[in-house]
Amino acid sequence: MLLRVRAAVAQLAAGLGAQPPAEARGAGAGAGAGAGRGSPPPAAFCRPAFLQLTPEELRRADDHAGRAVQSPRDGRRRLPWSSGYAEVINAGKSQHNEDQACCEVVFVEQRPSPRGWLSSREGSEELDGGRKGFYFHYWALFDGHAGSGAAVMASERLHLHICEQLRDLVEILQDPSPPPVCLPREAQTGSADPNQMSYAEDRGEVLNDAVPRFHLEKAVSHESLVIGAIENAFKHMDDQIERERASQHLAGGCCALAAIYLMGKFYVANAGDSRAIIIRNGEIIPMSREFTPETERQRLQFLALLRPELLGKEFTHLEFPRRIQPKELGKKMLYRDQNMNGWAYKKIEEDDLKFPLIFGEGKKARMMATIGVTRGLGDHDLKVFSSNIHIKPFLSCFPEVRVYDLTQYEHCPDDVLVLGTDGLWDVTNDEEVAAVVMEVLTSYEPNDPCRLSGAFNQAHLPTCRLRWRGVLT
Amino acid sequence: MLLRVRAAVAQLAAGLGAQPPAEARGAGAGAGAGAGRGSPPPAAFCRPAFLQLTPEELRRADDHAGRAVQSPRDGRRRLPWSSGYAEVINAGKSQHNEDQACCEVVFVEQRPSPRGWLSSREGSEELDGGRKGFYFHYWALFDGHAGSGAAVMASERLHLHICEQLRDLVEILQDPSPPPVCLPREAQTGSADPNQMSYAEDRGEVLNDAVPRFHLEKAVSHESLVIGAIENAFKHMDDQIERERASQHLAGGCCALAAIYLMGKFYVANAGDSRAIIIRNGEIIPMSREFTPETERQRLQFLALLRPELLGKEFTHLEFPRRIQPKELGKKMLYRDQNMNGWAYKKIEEDDLKFPLIFGEGKKARMMATIGVTRGLGDHDLKVFSSNIHIKPFLSCFPEVRVYDLTQYEHCPDDVLVLGTDGLWDVTNDEEVAAVVMEVLTSYEPNDPCRLSGAFNQAHLPTCRLRWRGVLT
Repeated sequence: MLLRVRAAVAQLAAGLGAQPPAEARGAGAGAGAGAGRGSPPPAAFCRPAFLQLTPEELRRADDHAGRAVQSPRDGRRRLPWSSGYAEVINAGKSQHNEDQACCEVVFVEQRPSPRGWLSSREGSEELDGGRKGFYFHYWALFDGHAGSGAAVMASERLHLHICEQLRDLVEILQDPSPPPVCLPREAQTGSADPNQMSYAEDRGEVLNDAVPRFHLEKAVSHESLVIGAIENAFKHMDDQIERERASQHLAGGCCALAAIYLMGKFYVANAGDSRAIIIRNGEIIPMSREFTPETERQRLQFLALLRPELLGKEFTHLEFPRRIQPKELGKKMLYRDQNMNGWAYKKIEEDDLKFPLIFGEGKKARMMATIGVTRGLGDHDLKVFSSNIHIKPFLSCFPEVRVYDLTQYEHCPDDVLVLGTDGLWDVTNDEEVAAVVMEVLTSYEPNDPCRLSGAFNQAHLPTCRLRWRGVLT
Repeated sequence: MLLRVRAAVAQLAAGLGAQPPAEARGAGAGAGAGAGRGSPPPAAFCRPAFLQLTPEELRRADDHAGRAVQSPRDGRRRLPWSSGYAEVINAGKSQHNEDQACCEVVFVEQRPSPRGWLSSREGSEELDGGRKGFYFHYWALFDGHAGSGAAVMASERLHLHICEQLRDLVEILQDPSPPPVCLPREAQTGSADPNQMSYAEDRGEVLNDAVPRFHLEKAVSHESLVIGAIENAFKHMDDQIERERASQHLAGGCCALAAIYLMGKFYVANAGDSRAIIIRNGEIIPMSREFTPETERQRLQFLALLRPELLGKEFTHLEFPRRIQPKELGKKMLYRDQNMNGWAYKKIEEDDLKFPLIFGEGKKARMMATIGVTRGLGDHDLKVFSSNIHIKPFLSCFPEVRVYDLTQYEHCPDDVLVLGTDGLWDVTNDEEVAAVVMEVLTSYEPNDPCRLSGAFNQAHLPTCRLRWRGVLT
């Protein structure tokens, strides 16, 4: 059983019944700071700041023999809502715990623009002097592998990239009318295009854009703009890791699971094999799915079929239930390709002797015999062992974003959102986690102030710890 | 409302409570006949044989003004189980009803093989003289477009291709032990490969294959072999249409929805926008999903990105909410690419003025401004209007196969499987269909012999007809 715990176990739970604080908390929120600009300090190895570990605790956290569970010393002050958190070092695959976590409240300040679309529409030339914007709450886990560099940088920056993407949407998201399909040119954009119109013509068009003129115009929701912003933020985060990996000595890659609370909705973005669930009145609502060589097999085989050069003559895009031996040429072997979910027999040919792109099953499934997750950040230098074949073209940095509208459901104070890396889910399941959460929370008086403020994690995690240990030993 | 009925409405319902007949029915079952071999007769336009239409009824069936609902004259004798069927001509898009249907009981006869894997394993050199095999039941709808040729041929042949694929699996599916991963070479296969072993060596290997020797060997279920057989049968059907489309004057393409009952399980295979549901004790169980430019957007955009030459310089793989005008160059427009589910703004460039690969929404969504379904059979000659750009590379002939294990649930005599083309689902929904089915069936005495044998369709369909007409007018 111990062997199954190969990655650090992390969990972060937010009480759904709590209201967002009136003002921003979290020192590192970096309201509207330009992500990726300037020269940030190197992404040195660390543990999440909100853990507030003493040197002694840090030493204990790194002790592979003891494998102590770490949780925040004073979560009440540091973590928004009623969040709790716990982590435990992995079982020895790496020297340090390569997982990271982040919990922030971020202010998204509207980008200064003398000719924003709304000001044009309303006819006002200038924005008022105040800071226009909104807050979002953010909780994220980064399950690192082959080094902690990507996970550390992602935990420090992903929320800033999300903030950056949302800055252009401040006015649009706060306006109840449907988002405009087309925005005017930016004033500073000097276009050499002969079709470019004068400022007056441009403004006339903007006014017309308020009235739909096109018969076939797809309606786009505010929600899908937020999803698009989060998706592109993951892409920008991955690009930044690629750009700075040499100068910042960023090793490895990471799965990323982030929950963003914005304007009454949770947006849960997952790229990798971490998992999020909501527990509502004992019911489990999945908020993510895992991206692995097995779940993404057909996408990967399709890419390999269309771009066979990426396989470097070492791999075949077909899947077989096991390796084929040269002496089996001419026999019939089970296989499946990018179109199939079932299996069929094919006569074994020379090309089938190559190693299958996807091989193994369950936790042992690997792509190119190398990696067990197919989405995430980093891994730009990852190659197949002892070869020059790059893995990255097959990986996707894009998350799947699921939305949960908090205003659509009745919630009780015991309802929670749970985020966990595969280290947690390898040794327990949704039902067991839900049972532990309910057991701990019902042991408190409903009006206990500790219950709402921060005792959730203080009480919950030792119990979880015992529970996990019970599973582990 | 009338305008919404653009395709023929077809429905085929099978009582789940009934048992398969002891022997095969259906004259055209063609037990084990080699599909696609020899010179089949041309696929002339017709209506399903089980309708047994008189010349007068055939004339009425072709009357676009009357649009009479057709159902079998004597379903009890012609259709297995308690199947019912009804169809109505479309609202005038084509001269004839381009949809087709098929209902058969097919005998899958084991392929003669002196060295089948099982006979080798058991040490018996020869199979006994009797016919070894099994039956499957088969119901299918083919929603034709741009001509009836593909639909007619598919309705006559798809079950034979499925039979052909299953013939190699007769012994394997009847053996309760797990399917062998590797089968021996066929005796008649003369391989020039230097690794080829002698007969004796080969047999030795076969014996060893019964014992798993490989640590990493994926277990493959019998069920997934049937799924693979159905998937490949669709591919072979599509290949046959491609080969014979010139000689047989096969025009157009078709969506294909087929339900196969085999060894206690329903396998429902769908390629297109038809839909199957099971109604079990009033509960609706979806047995398919629709494949359209909207549901397959990311697959299509991914292919277009990797193979831009398929777009013929006329299309862009990006999706926009509407066409972009040349004078909008430099502005910002909402878009999404193959990685995104949300939307974001991008600055409009020259390339974005091309027509979007996917355009429109709902029933108006089209790929390359041409076709509203993205899976099916045929369409090998389909091109973008007034261009030389082929549509077929973007279409998939592979179905999604869903499995329903009849032995896992309690069923009552009113439980049914309903198959319908989009003509049905455009004007009604799952809940309405379930209500009609329950209403009609509960109006019969439970012990009424007509109820179990064949009256289901006799009684059900006129009611459906009224119901549909109520919706249509």
